[in-house]
Amino acid sequence: MVRHAIGIDLGGTFLKGGIVNERGELLETHTIPSEVHKGPERILENLLDTARHLSDRAKERGVSLSGIGVVSPGVIDPVYGGIAGGAENLPGWEKVPFMRTMEGLFGLPVSAHNDVTSHALGEARFGAGRGKRNIVMASFGTGIGGGIIVDGALYSGSIGYAGEIGHIAVHAGGRTCACGTKGCWEEYASIRGILRLARAAIARSRRAQTGARQARSPWPGEGAALTPEAIFEAARRGDDTALEIVDEIGRETAVGIGGLINVFNPEIFIIGGGVAAAGSAAGGLYLEAVKRHLPSWTLEFSLRAVELVEARLGYEAGIIGASVLVFEGINVHRDGLP
Amino acid sequence: MVRHAIGIDLGGTFLKGGIVNERGELLETHTIPSEVHKGPERILENLLDTARHLSDRAKERGVSLSGIGVVSPGVIDPVYGGIAGGAENLPGWEKVPFMRTMEGLFGLPVSAHNDVTSHALGEARFGAGRGKRNIVMASFGTGIGGGIIVDGALYSGSIGYAGEIGHIAVHAGGRTCACGTKGCWEEYASIRGILRLARAAIARSRRAQTGARQARSPWPGEGAALTPEAIFEAARRGDDTALEIVDEIGRETAVGIGGLINVFNPEIFIIGGGVAAAGSAAGGLYLEAVKRHLPSWTLEFSLRAVELVEARLGYEAGIIGASVLVFEGINVHRDGLP
Repeated sequence: MVRHAIGIDLGGTFLKGGIVNERGELLETHTIPSEVHKGPERILENLLDTARHLSDRAKERGVSLSGIGVVSPGVIDPVYGGIAGGAENLPGWEKVPFMRTMEGLFGLPVSAHNDVTSHALGEARFGAGRGKRNIVMASFGTGIGGGIIVDGALYSGSIGYAGEIGHIAVHAGGRTCACGTKGCWEEYASIRGILRLARAAIARSRRAQTGARQARSPWPGEGAALTPEAIFEAARRGDDTALEIVDEIGRETAVGIGGLINVFNPEIFIIGGGVAAAGSAAGGLYLEAVKRHLPSWTLEFSLRAVELVEARLGYEAGIIGASVLVFEGINVHRDGLP
Repeated sequence: MVRHAIGIDLGGTFLKGGIVNERGELLETHTIPSEVHKGPERILENLLDTARHLSDRAKERGVSLSGIGVVSPGVIDPVYGGIAGGAENLPGWEKVPFMRTMEGLFGLPVSAHNDVTSHALGEARFGAGRGKRNIVMASFGTGIGGGIIVDGALYSGSIGYAGEIGHIAVHAGGRTCACGTKGCWEEYASIRGILRLARAAIARSRRAQTGARQARSPWPGEGAALTPEAIFEAARRGDDTALEIVDEIGRETAVGIGGLINVFNPEIFIIGGGVAAAGSAAGGLYLEAVKRHLPSWTLEFSLRAVELVEARLGYEAGIIGASVLVFEGINVHRDGLP
């Protein structure tokens, strides 16, 4: 019999939930705003509503559930039953032992894990990493998160905090990261890193034009918001400044990926997150730029052994990752001794 | 019954061998020069001599052997039965399928693996990492090598090349490493990195004294060779320049260790190799300096969860690591299909 689980992706904006079978197929989804600004009680209420809705739907479908999986920013403590910290965009959320509450309400095993880690697990099982045993995934968004699959199993480290790949110092002594370290990779290749690169390149380009004949601004997106999407799109149209920016993005991204390939010698390296999605939408310019720079930052042996690919699971990656936690019995809530 | 194995550590200078039982105890050792400058045939001859001597001794002791383990620089290909590359200080050695030859001669299973990786495995089982499940070891010598133990098992990556931690770019765009990458950690925290730091600090200190009253050189080891030992020893005696150098060594070393702790969230991080040994001999100054800088480069959560310690296995680390390969059936030579 094919098992089923509820998978819920708790994000800063949306609570995305779904009923997933163990082949990674989504039977249905349910999304509501997470309303994090209304405080942790409201988040919990919304989380429980989502689970209740999906649990009711499973009953209507005659599907029996193996458990509920939740992915959330931060570090999960499955004994406490909530997050131990590291989720700055969910203020107060570390005070809520939601796993315990859900287990009591629904009478099902409840698993939870970090969102990016779980996303990597989902990609490993049902996405770009299917069938591979050693996988590193990097997600480029507000920050840079990571997920590591080692010999086929999710690697979480000693307290579930493994995969903080955005906090390798690649420009040691450089820009101060939110974590306090000077020169974290995240300061150079996350969205804010990329936009900083872009602003600098645009300023250089403008200075170069001062006094020159050409009166037009070199940036075609002028006036519009500067976003990864706008940069990749302008590059796709052939804008010189945008092409230069994309090349720099490729270099700064390859620096960290190369180091991780040297450390892990993975079969596959998956890139995901908002930046990768924006690059993908613009014809694969991002992947191409990273690949162009990767040989400068990677040992030849390990480079030859690895495939660099884009994530395949899209919007539903978190939901599917959450369900895999259930199917594989990862980070199941268990009360500690009193 | 307690099993026994022959463990052999093939280094650029010595071939160190021993008979080891599965409790990690050395029954006896045998060391000869490896004579790498005399070419791969001579290395093989010496390797076989070492194995033959120890195999004879095992017979005399009435000890039956479970296998032979060999640790070597480079990447082992257990199907080919030799190294696939990456051992620049053993010229021609990649042409010798020594595992195949040994298996034929001795009629025993032959395991082989990278030396630093195996050293980490030895430390995990019988040294500083005993009883821990998630371990990273860094060895600071001519370069920086690494070994990774994940959920209790040695992690070798997809083709045995995992653990090349010296080739994370921590000063991306900085000094060119032998591997071609600009800014590898190895260029800053290996012996050559350290000596470069030291020479710069000594030069600064001399410039600061030009025209000043003090006529003496600030470097007490003046005239003697500049080595990690001399630096740590001078620092132990309270020399200001040496103390400053040790502090810089601590910072450059902590940069990489911090990144690795963020990625792996290990229970224990072991530092070994010639630099760690020199620091240890001078009263633990190296470990102390690294610990002082580590909070600047590590996430608080993962820093709290990790112990930073010195390697415990000394001269015999490679021999013991080689024997563990046998006991755990790691990288055993197996002919590929024709």
